[in-house]
Amino acid sequence: MEKTNYSSSILQYIPYFFIIWSDDLLSVSEVAVVRRIIKNDPTLSEDERELLYTWLHKEAPPKWKVIKNWAEIISNSGVKLNESDTYPLTSFSKKLASLNGGDPSINEKLSEIEINLGIQPNHYNHLFEVEVQKEKTSNYYSGKEIHQILMGEHNQQLEHFGEFLSHPNFSWEVNRDLDGFRKKVLTQVQHLGEKGYGAMAYPEEYGGINNMTLYANIFEYLMFVDGSLTIKFGVQFGLFGGSVQKLGSKKHHDQYLKNIGEAKLLGCFAMTETGHGSNVRGIKTTATYTRETDAITIHTPGKNDNKEYIGNALHGSMATVFAQLIVKGKNHGVHAILVPLRDENNNLMPGVTIEDCGYKLGLNGVDNGKIWFNQVQVPRENLLNKYGDIKPDGSYYSAIKNPNKRFFTMLGTLVGGRICVAKGALGGAKMALAIAVKYALKRRQFNDSIKIQEDLIMDYPSHQLRLTPPIAKSYVYHVTLEALMKTYSDDTITDKREVETQVAALKAVITWFANETIQECREACGGKGYLLENRIADLKTDVDIFTTFEGDNTVLLQLAAKGILSNFNSELNSGGFKAVLKMVSSQIKDKLVAINPAYSNKVDKDHLYNPKFHQHAFDYRTRRLTYSLAMRIKDYIKRGVPPYQAFLKVQSHLLALGKAYSCELAYTTFVRYTDSIEDQKNRELFKKLGALFALQEIREDATWYLEHGYIGSTKSKAIRQRVERLSTELRPHIENLVDGFGIPEHCLTAPIIR
Amino acid sequence: MEKTNYSSSILQYIPYFFIIWSDDLLSVSEVAVVRRIIKNDPTLSEDERELLYTWLHKEAPPKWKVIKNWAEIISNSGVKLNESDTYPLTSFSKKLASLNGGDPSINEKLSEIEINLGIQPNHYNHLFEVEVQKEKTSNYYSGKEIHQILMGEHNQQLEHFGEFLSHPNFSWEVNRDLDGFRKKVLTQVQHLGEKGYGAMAYPEEYGGINNMTLYANIFEYLMFVDGSLTIKFGVQFGLFGGSVQKLGSKKHHDQYLKNIGEAKLLGCFAMTETGHGSNVRGIKTTATYTRETDAITIHTPGKNDNKEYIGNALHGSMATVFAQLIVKGKNHGVHAILVPLRDENNNLMPGVTIEDCGYKLGLNGVDNGKIWFNQVQVPRENLLNKYGDIKPDGSYYSAIKNPNKRFFTMLGTLVGGRICVAKGALGGAKMALAIAVKYALKRRQFNDSIKIQEDLIMDYPSHQLRLTPPIAKSYVYHVTLEALMKTYSDDTITDKREVETQVAALKAVITWFANETIQECREACGGKGYLLENRIADLKTDVDIFTTFEGDNTVLLQLAAKGILSNFNSELNSGGFKAVLKMVSSQIKDKLVAINPAYSNKVDKDHLYNPKFHQHAFDYRTRRLTYSLAMRIKDYIKRGVPPYQAFLKVQSHLLALGKAYSCELAYTTFVRYTDSIEDQKNRELFKKLGALFALQEIREDATWYLEHGYIGSTKSKAIRQRVERLSTELRPHIENLVDGFGIPEHCLTAPIIR
Repeated sequence: MEKTNYSSSILQYIPYFFIIWSDDLLSVSEVAVVRRIIKNDPTLSEDERELLYTWLHKEAPPKWKVIKNWAEIISNSGVKLNESDTYPLTSFSKKLASLNGGDPSINEKLSEIEINLGIQPNHYNHLFEVEVQKEKTSNYYSGKEIHQILMGEHNQQLEHFGEFLSHPNFSWEVNRDLDGFRKKVLTQVQHLGEKGYGAMAYPEEYGGINNMTLYANIFEYLMFVDGSLTIKFGVQFGLFGGSVQKLGSKKHHDQYLKNIGEAKLLGCFAMTETGHGSNVRGIKTTATYTRETDAITIHTPGKNDNKEYIGNALHGSMATVFAQLIVKGKNHGVHAILVPLRDENNNLMPGVTIEDCGYKLGLNGVDNGKIWFNQVQVPRENLLNKYGDIKPDGSYYSAIKNPNKRFFTMLGTLVGGRICVAKGALGGAKMALAIAVKYALKRRQFNDSIKIQEDLIMDYPSHQLRLTPPIAKSYVYHVTLEALMKTYSDDTITDKREVETQVAALKAVITWFANETIQECREACGGKGYLLENRIADLKTDVDIFTTFEGDNTVLLQLAAKGILSNFNSELNSGGFKAVLKMVSSQIKDKLVAINPAYSNKVDKDHLYNPKFHQHAFDYRTRRLTYSLAMRIKDYIKRGVPPYQAFLKVQSHLLALGKAYSCELAYTTFVRYTDSIEDQKNRELFKKLGALFALQEIREDATWYLEHGYIGSTKSKAIRQRVERLSTELRPHIENLVDGFGIPEHCLTAPIIR
Repeated sequence: MEKTNYSSSILQYIPYFFIIWSDDLLSVSEVAVVRRIIKNDPTLSEDERELLYTWLHKEAPPKWKVIKNWAEIISNSGVKLNESDTYPLTSFSKKLASLNGGDPSINEKLSEIEINLGIQPNHYNHLFEVEVQKEKTSNYYSGKEIHQILMGEHNQQLEHFGEFLSHPNFSWEVNRDLDGFRKKVLTQVQHLGEKGYGAMAYPEEYGGINNMTLYANIFEYLMFVDGSLTIKFGVQFGLFGGSVQKLGSKKHHDQYLKNIGEAKLLGCFAMTETGHGSNVRGIKTTATYTRETDAITIHTPGKNDNKEYIGNALHGSMATVFAQLIVKGKNHGVHAILVPLRDENNNLMPGVTIEDCGYKLGLNGVDNGKIWFNQVQVPRENLLNKYGDIKPDGSYYSAIKNPNKRFFTMLGTLVGGRICVAKGALGGAKMALAIAVKYALKRRQFNDSIKIQEDLIMDYPSHQLRLTPPIAKSYVYHVTLEALMKTYSDDTITDKREVETQVAALKAVITWFANETIQECREACGGKGYLLENRIADLKTDVDIFTTFEGDNTVLLQLAAKGILSNFNSELNSGGFKAVLKMVSSQIKDKLVAINPAYSNKVDKDHLYNPKFHQHAFDYRTRRLTYSLAMRIKDYIKRGVPPYQAFLKVQSHLLALGKAYSCELAYTTFVRYTDSIEDQKNRELFKKLGALFALQEIREDATWYLEHGYIGSTKSKAIRQRVERLSTELRPHIENLVDGFGIPEHCLTAPIIR
C-alpha cells in the first residue's frame, strides 16, 4: 500500500499534483517552476522535498494508485472550492492542509504554481468531486476597457454613434415583404445622411471630416442593426459617393458630393453585368462620344450585357455607369460616367429600363435591380474624368498612357469598399459570437448524476473549442483591418499596389471566416438559433454574399497571389545576383530548420506560445509557397505551356498562397499592435488571443506543415492540445471578450440572451 | 541544338510525351504501359525505340528545350483537336504523323496509352495552342442509366413519383408570408396523403405497402420540390404516424393509422421542450395516471417546460406527447401519449395553449409551434403502450424491466426518422450540385487572349475541385443510406443497437456535408446563386437546421462514439484473453505498417486507386482512435477522475471517432455495392467515384494520417494530386453524373440553367 497519511506540508501540494497528473499538464518549463518552488519551500523537510521531486518526472509519472489516492483525499476532505477567490486553487490547498490539525505551515509561494502554469478553475473543478462555488464570468477583465483599447482614437465617436443607434428608426423587426423592408432601410439611410454619418469620408467642404477609418467603423457598427442597412449605406455613400469623389474632379464634387453625403441625391454604382461579374475588363456596355452633339451615348448592346445586382436601383436617381469608352472610334477601355436614371418626379429617363432583381437569400432591404440603357445620351461633362478625359476638342486624354495601368488605377481607388466589406462581415461574426456566447452562459443541458443543476453549455470543452478560436480571430482581423484602412487612406503612400494585394487576400479570408463563424454560432444555439428573432439567421443570409460581391473570393485570392508573385519576381530581377544569393541562402536556412528535430518537435509551452515561433511558421510558409509556385510556373512556361494555361494549372497553389499571405499579414499586424498596448494586464490578454489565433491557424494547416517537415507529429498534437487548453483558459473571460466587441446593448435584441 | 525533324513514327508519340511531361503524369505503372506499347510497335526502328525510351525516365526527364520543341511542333502543325472523336488524342496524333508526308505507318495500339493513362481532352486541350472542337458533355455514360443503377428495385416507382410531382400543386414559387406558404404546403401534404404516398411505410391493412426504403426515397425526392413540404410530410407520416405505428399497439393502429396515412388526421410529434432538446431523458412534462378517473393528466410544470419547434402545431388536431409517466407516485420514465389538441371545429382543447414559433431562417412553410398543457386529461387508452403499459388495475407494466433500456428501445424505434433526415439533406445537396454544375456548363468568364470565347467556368480546375468530390460523396452516401435503411427495416434483425450507432454517426456527417456542399454551390453560382429564383438559397436555409433536429450533430457523434466504445469493451470483456491477444497483435501489425516506408510512401497510381488501400486506411484510423480513446478514458478513471468528467475531457476525440467510423462504414458499403454492379462500364465509373471519395476523405484528414506516420509527405502530396486529377478526369461526365441523381426535369426550375 502507498502512504496515504501526508503531512500538512505535503498535503498543500496534493491538489496541484493531482491536477498536473490528471491532465498531463507538464512541459519542461513547467517542471522547472514547480521544482523551484519546492526547492525554496521552508516548510518542507529534506525527505518531504525528495518525495515531491519523485512526483515530477514526466518519464516516470506517479502510479495510478497514488493519483487515485490523491483524488480520494480531495473528495473526502469536505473542503469547498470557491472560484471567486483570487487564487482559488491555492486557497483550496491551504484549507486542505489545515485539515490535518496542528500548524499548517503554509508556503505562501504556492500561488506561483497556479499563476505560472496558467491553471484556471475550469481546468480542474470538474476533476474534484467537491462542491464548487462557481462564478459565470470573472471580473478580472472589463469588456468596456477592452473595447476602448480596440477602438483607440475613435472610441468616443463610436460610443456616441452606438448611442445614436438606439433611435427607434434603428430598432430591429422581422421584415418579410420587399416594399416595407426597403422603405424602412431607405428611411434609415436618409436619417444617417442627415446626421452627417454618410459624408464621414468626404472632405470638409462637402460636409465630411475626411476620415475613412471612422467611416469604415460606422459601416461595421451598422451590421449590429441590420445587414441591408449596412449595404445600402455602403452603396450610397461608399460606392456611388466614393466613385464621384475618387474618379471625378472638382466640378463633380461641387455639383454632387454634398447632396450625396446627405442622401438627397441617391445613386447607384453600376459596374457588374449579367455576363461579366469577375471579369470587369470584359464588360460590354458602351459609352460612345459623338463630337457633333458633344454628348456620350450609353448603350447596352446584347442580351446579357445589362447591369445586374445594382443596389439602390429602385430608389436611385443617378448611377455611376462603367462602360467601354469609345472616342473617335477607338476603345479607351472601361471608364465611369454619371447617368441620370430618374427625373425629379421619379419617372425613368428615356432609354433607361430597370427591373427588380426580386427576392434574394438575404439583404432583402436592399433594392437590387437590373439596368438596361438604350442609346441614352449624357453630356460630356458627366464623364468622371480624373484618370481619363475627353477634351473640349473631342479628343481623348489621359495622364496614364498604358490602358492596363489606367484600368487598375481606377479600380484601385475603389479598394476602400473591399475593406468595408471585410469589416461588415467581421461585424456580423462578432454579433453572432456575442449572441452564441451569452446564450451558452445561460443554457444548461445534461449533467453529472451527482449534480442537481445541469451544466452550462459554455462549460463543455467542445463548445469552448467551437467559439473561442473564432473570438481570437475576430480580434486579430479587427486590428488588421484598422491598420489596412489607415495605410489605404494615407495620402503620402502613392503606390497602393501592395495594399491592394493585401486587401484582396484579406477580404476573401475574412468574409469566409465570417460565414463559417456565423454558421458555427447558429448550430451552437441549436433550434433557437434558427428563429429569426434571435438574429443569427439574418446574419447568415446577409453575410453570405459578402464572399461574392466586391470581388469573388476565389478570384481575389488568385489576384493577391499574382501580386505576391510579381513582387517576388521584380525583387529577384531588380536585386540581381545578390537577391538570388539571398533567396538561395534563405532556402538553405529553411531546410536546416525543417530537418532540425529539436525545432520541429519542440513542444515546450514557452516555445509554443512564443510569437517568434508563430511568425517564423507563417513567414516560412509564405516564402516556400511563393518560391515553389514561381518555380512551377517557370517550369511550365519553359516546357512550352502558354502562360494563361500555366496559371490555370497552379490554381489551388495560388489559393493556398493567398491564404498563407493573409494569415502572415494579419498576425504580424496584430503582434505589432499588441506590443504597443501600454497596460500590462490587457496586453497579456491580447497576447493570449494572438497565440490562440496563431496556433489555431497552424492547426488548420497542419497537413502542410507536416508534409514539409516543419512540424513533427508530437508538435502537431501538442499544438492541438494547446488550442484546446487556451480555449478553456479563456473560458472565465469569454463574456468580457465578446463585450469587448462593443456591440451596443440595445442592438443585442435576441430574446435568447435577454 | 536538339533534333527537331522527327520521323512519322516518332511524331505520332509526340503529343503523348508532351502531355506526360507537361503534367508530370508518370507513375511506375504508367511508365510500364507506355514502354510496352513502344516495345511492341512494329513501325519503330531500333534507334527510334531507343530514343523514345530515353524520354521515359522519371529521374531524368527530357530537357525543357526538347519539350518546348514538341509544343512548337504541335502548335505549328495546324491540326485541329476534335473532342468528339472516340480517341481524340490518338486521332490527333495520327493527323500529326501524316503531316510529314509519305506513309504514316500508324501504330494502332497507341490508343491504349490514352485509355490506360486515363488521359482526357480536358487534361490537355489547354496545353496545345491549336484549335479545339469542344464538346460540353461526353455521351459515353448516360445519366438515366446511372440513375437506374442507383435506384435499383425502386427505379420504376420513383420514376412514376417523379412524374407525379409535375402536378401544378408542386410547382415552385417564392413564398414569403407564413400563412400563404403554410396553406400551400398543407395542400401538398394532403394531396400526397390522398394518393397513398404518406402511408408507404405502414402495413397494407392501413393503406400502406410496408416499404420504409421507398418511403425514404420519396421523402428525399420531395426535397426537389421544397424543403418545407419534405419536413411537414415527415412530421405527419413519419414522426406522428411512425410513433403511433411503432410505439402504439393494434387498437391505436386500427383507430388512427389509416386516417393519418391519408392526412385526414393531422398530428404532431411533441418531444423537444424549450429547456430540453438534446437531453430527452430530462424532459419535464408529466403524464400522471389517476386511478379514480382512469385517466392520464398531461401537464407542463414550469416556464421552460413547454414543447417547442413542434411541426404541424397550427394544423394538427392530435399530438404524440412525450412525458414522464407517473403511476402510483412512481416515475417510470419517458413515455408517449396521444393527446387531442383541437376539436372538430379546430378550436383548441381545454388546457392546451399553442403559440406560433414565428419566422425561421428557412422551412417557413412548416407551422412550428410551442405547446403548453395545463392539467389536460386523456383516457388511459391513449398511452402508446407497446413498451410500457398501465394495466386495467392501474398498475404499471413493461416487459423491459430496466428503465434505461426501455427508454432507448422506445427512442430506437424512431431511428428511421434520422435516416430520412440524412436522406433529405443529401437530396438538397444533390439539387444544389445539379444546379451549380449545369450553370457552370453555361457560364463563361475570362479567357486566354488568343481565344475569342471566354472559358466555361466548369473548365477551371478550381471549379472542378470544388464540385466533383462532393458529387462523388453524394453517390457514396446515397448508397450507404439505402443499405442502412434496409438493415433498419429488416425485422429479422432484432437488436438494432448497431444500426442506431451507424445512423447517429451518418446523420451528423451527411447533414454537415450537405450544408457545406450547398454553400459551395451557392458561391460557385456567384450572385445568381443568391437569388431565390435559382433555388440554392432556399436549400441553404432549409437544410441548415438538419444539423440540429432529430439529434444535434455534436451530441449524435458522441453518442455514436460511445456505442463504438461499448462494442469494443464488450468484445474485449467477452473475448477474454484471446481478444486481448488479438488486439495486441493488431496493434503490432498497425505499427509495422506505419513504420514501413514502402507503404507509407507508396505513390503509385494502382496503389492509390486501390480500394484495399482505402479500406485499410479507414479501418486503421477507426481502430486506432477506438483503442486510444478507450485507453485515455481508462487512464482518467484509474487516476480517480469521475467517468462523466472523463468523457468530457475526451470530447474532441469522441467526435473524431464518430466521423472516422462513418467514413469507414460509408466506404465499405459503397465498395460492396460497386462490386455488385453487373455492367462493367458503369462499374468502372462507380469505382472511380469511390476512389475520389476515399482519397478526398484521406486528404481532408491528412493531418491525422501524417501525425500517425500512416502516410508520408510524398504520399500526402500524391493523394492531393490524385484528387485533382480525378476531378478533371470526370469533367466530361460531370453532367451525366448530376443527371444520375434523377432530379425530375420539371423540378429544376432555376432560370440560370434553363
